[in-house]
Amino acid sequence: MQIAIPLFDRFTALDAVGPYEMLCRLPGSEVVLVADRAGPVTNDRGDLSLVATASFDAVRRPDVVVVPGGPGQHARMDDEALLGWLRAADATTTWTTSVCTGSLLLGAAGLLKGREATSHWLALDVLASLGARPTGRRVVTDGKYVTAAGVSSGIDMGLTLVGRIAGDDHARAVQLLTEYDPQPPYDAGAPGKAPAHLVEEFRTRSRFILT
Amino acid sequence: MQIAIPLFDRFTALDAVGPYEMLCRLPGSEVVLVADRAGPVTNDRGDLSLVATASFDAVRRPDVVVVPGGPGQHARMDDEALLGWLRAADATTTWTTSVCTGSLLLGAAGLLKGREATSHWLALDVLASLGARPTGRRVVTDGKYVTAAGVSSGIDMGLTLVGRIAGDDHARAVQLLTEYDPQPPYDAGAPGKAPAHLVEEFRTRSRFILT
Repeated sequence: MQIAIPLFDRFTALDAVGPYEMLCRLPGSEVVLVADRAGPVTNDRGDLSLVATASFDAVRRPDVVVVPGGPGQHARMDDEALLGWLRAADATTTWTTSVCTGSLLLGAAGLLKGREATSHWLALDVLASLGARPTGRRVVTDGKYVTAAGVSSGIDMGLTLVGRIAGDDHARAVQLLTEYDPQPPYDAGAPGKAPAHLVEEFRTRSRFILT
Repeated sequence: MQIAIPLFDRFTALDAVGPYEMLCRLPGSEVVLVADRAGPVTNDRGDLSLVATASFDAVRRPDVVVVPGGPGQHARMDDEALLGWLRAADATTTWTTSVCTGSLLLGAAGLLKGREATSHWLALDVLASLGARPTGRRVVTDGKYVTAAGVSSGIDMGLTLVGRIAGDDHARAVQLLTEYDPQPPYDAGAPGKAPAHLVEEFRTRSRFILT
């Protein structure tokens, strides 16, 4: 089973590494980080690079695709090399998945039309404009398409997928080995839980960034 | 504020990237991935590399150190280049921290003697043998030393540290932006919660690996 994680300039590191750390523990799986060309790809903060080990050309028929997000996705929503690769890969995948604004790339590739999906909470309107039906759930499965909410939700998505692929017992083993028993020190991880002034501040900033 | 994350062959990716994704959002901070030499460093699965942007020699006085773990740490507990760097860096840090078996490296460097600390649940005995006082808590603070349990707990540790450094409101903003509202699909993330046969299986394997 080949799991491909496409990287692009300004991706968000945890979007990729969260599900990676769950999915890499699937028996008989191979994970490949893929990009325009093999080599380092730098994240949205500019201070962390992951190494793509293969070019898009070299990974034609992955079984699972996990698309991370990042502010860079706005620049990539018209990148036909990436979108074309997503469409071609999707033709053979068992699971096509995304984390955070990675779903906007799946949407821009035309893969989410009419489907239930999610994205970073600040990007749900954009997701809807691409033909998807946004939901407020953290991990959304519609057929073979699994989309996750912002950044850290890729861990929940990855573990969910491990269960679907390898069974509940294996997923519990992965959860135990990665000690995924989260205990956040605050309870502000969703717009319905965070202080209203923070939600409003980010909505305002987001309008500025997106327009 | 300089945040240094030392990398070494066979580190666990999420140990480093989980806290990274929280701490990189501290105002006025600079994160540097540091290793024996600048360049790619490969993880414990052999299929993911992060790029170290500086050598140990070039990072002498970090403000915060975050030591990831990984099965590789067993080989590194007598690596004087790494342990010596940890000791020297610790002399000037405001916070010295670890995720998973990264605490065994801090312990091997002599930095946790008599201190409350934690590690991956399978490594608590080794941690005790290095002079620390293991606790079952997920994030343990003793003075300026903050240690976290296995792999995914680095996110809780990182967010805790953001709160200590920049205040609760900023930490809540980081939690909201990274949508850290975890909803694991299973409840097996700690030895007290997982099925007993899984716990026993890993303890047996671990004895085999550690001896």
